[in-house]
Amino acid sequence: MRTALVIGTGLIGTSAAIALAGRGVTVHLRDHDPARASTAAALGAGTDEAPEGPVDLVIVAVPPAHVAATLAEAMGAGLGRGYLDVASVKGGPKRELEALGLDLTAYIGSHPMSGKERSGPLAATADLFEGRPWVLTPTRDTDTEVLNLALELVALCRAVPVVMDADAHDRAVALVSHTPQLVSSMVAARLEEADESAVRLCGQGIRDVTRIAASDPRMWVEILSANPGPVADVLSGVAADLDETVRALRSLQSADEDKRRDGASGVADVLRRGNAGRSRVPGKHGAGPTVYETVAVLISDQPGELARIFADAGRAGVNIEDVRIEHATGQQAGLVQLMVEPSTAPALGAALQERGWALRTS
Amino acid sequence: MRTALVIGTGLIGTSAAIALAGRGVTVHLRDHDPARASTAAALGAGTDEAPEGPVDLVIVAVPPAHVAATLAEAMGAGLGRGYLDVASVKGGPKRELEALGLDLTAYIGSHPMSGKERSGPLAATADLFEGRPWVLTPTRDTDTEVLNLALELVALCRAVPVVMDADAHDRAVALVSHTPQLVSSMVAARLEEADESAVRLCGQGIRDVTRIAASDPRMWVEILSANPGPVADVLSGVAADLDETVRALRSLQSADEDKRRDGASGVADVLRRGNAGRSRVPGKHGAGPTVYETVAVLISDQPGELARIFADAGRAGVNIEDVRIEHATGQQAGLVQLMVEPSTAPALGAALQERGWALRTS
Repeated sequence: MRTALVIGTGLIGTSAAIALAGRGVTVHLRDHDPARASTAAALGAGTDEAPEGPVDLVIVAVPPAHVAATLAEAMGAGLGRGYLDVASVKGGPKRELEALGLDLTAYIGSHPMSGKERSGPLAATADLFEGRPWVLTPTRDTDTEVLNLALELVALCRAVPVVMDADAHDRAVALVSHTPQLVSSMVAARLEEADESAVRLCGQGIRDVTRIAASDPRMWVEILSANPGPVADVLSGVAADLDETVRALRSLQSADEDKRRDGASGVADVLRRGNAGRSRVPGKHGAGPTVYETVAVLISDQPGELARIFADAGRAGVNIEDVRIEHATGQQAGLVQLMVEPSTAPALGAALQERGWALRTS
Repeated sequence: MRTALVIGTGLIGTSAAIALAGRGVTVHLRDHDPARASTAAALGAGTDEAPEGPVDLVIVAVPPAHVAATLAEAMGAGLGRGYLDVASVKGGPKRELEALGLDLTAYIGSHPMSGKERSGPLAATADLFEGRPWVLTPTRDTDTEVLNLALELVALCRAVPVVMDADAHDRAVALVSHTPQLVSSMVAARLEEADESAVRLCGQGIRDVTRIAASDPRMWVEILSANPGPVADVLSGVAADLDETVRALRSLQSADEDKRRDGASGVADVLRRGNAGRSRVPGKHGAGPTVYETVAVLISDQPGELARIFADAGRAGVNIEDVRIEHATGQQAGLVQLMVEPSTAPALGAALQERGWALRTS
């Protein structure tokens, strides 16, 4: 790929443009708001001048609702050899393009699984896609040459290509992204009217479950509006489990021992299925979830405490895989949980104790 | 408090005993399994010999289902001046005691909000309760002297006392602990039968939402069996929101523009209420959630990399409030997100860049 045209210079379009431009591709930038295109150009994403002839790849990075029309226009004008969009849903745009009767040999759908809280060209970075899955959804008509252009784009952005059917993609993101978002919001919504004394009892569990409930509603309404069917399907499955669990809990209130036993078994069932599902969530490096061992260390809340711990761990030659810091309520002391490969935990614990750290066994 | 009797030497009972014994209280230990009591004694939790006369405080740390009977027996035998239990639900045991027609002036309910994955005396530590809320649920009859004994226990365990009504406590833990557990399990359960390609797309959001779905079902069936009513009530609220959201998503699939607008507003509503609820979740130190700024740094996955970052941050005099490590899929490089007070973020970024770290702006 030597030339590209990015249409839509928001976070994703500009980030891809910066990555491509940084790796020697001549990138042209276009936006319905010319000021955004020049901002992107000023950030090193390419030039906001129009290309003189067809480019190798046209990258359409506009909101889902505008994807089909923008692609149709670009194809009609013959702007490129290949055309790709980056919208977070893939079935709808594909069907809209088919309905327009376009020749789709030069088109491939795609969805880079990257994002951040901020949007717009100023939030863009060349490394936005590094190591993240970038889903490619070729149609039955997509030319191999166009698939290869897309794979080259993904490689230049240092993402990991995953080829999927467009509708399978939409069902997958409904399952692993859109449903967790809505359910997190619903658990958090229960706290809106809660007593202050109840809220004081929040621990790490609810903190984790509701973290993404802080997301921007406007952005999520846009995402969910483009994928309502698959999300409703997954949520209906959750709703069935929820109704079943409420019934099981009501049975647990019964005076009848058989009913209580049924209730307990219903509750156990959903918890066990949760175990099974959770065990499938991939850990780091795309591998299966690694079981780390936790070495817990008490610290004071002074600058440099964490530095000392990590320095001491480094001296022991142990690689910290993950960290969780849990500060105690109402006081300055805190607990640092260091997750390490199980084989290295005893050495780390010993090394830290030797250097005067107070461990909390877990 | 000079003497105490701990009945039930599991994780909680033994941890409290170790804390009390370490601070000069003479602690007697009792368990239906004498071997567990001697294990606890060997760990420095006190003596497994019976006290010669009434102790100052009898701490009943047996499973919820056995609390009332154990308390009744201890009271009948006149084992102490005051009696306290530590069960994770408070309304049921209280009502059972009332039904037994006991004099409850010497009784106070309590629930230390601490725990860990492992159970039993060997998992016990003196610092299990440090900085954590310890709920006290006096009855209308509880003597002030007994409340003060309980407050002394909480202080000796370095926990933070929170006085609540027993039923309010049960509703609160249903809201902030039991419901999030079940909902996390239900989201994870959806993954049990999912395609491998879908599971590959899991990101940090679903990872956080489903973390506690890995919890032990047996322990949770016990907890939920003791608090089914309040949990069913909160879950019913979630179920109503869920049904409403499924309806809103189905409206978004409609050809009718008015219906689609209603659907979008329904989805926006639950997301906004989620924002409001999430904003009430307390952050560290029991304060309102502090908004930290994130400084993101790219690292290689070598031992010592984190140590170097934290050392460099420490040299800049900046206190890292929280850390998130996000490893890239399929490669060794990773991203470390350092959460700091907003005022210190620029200095930290500059200091790290000066020392050669690659920042990723966010």
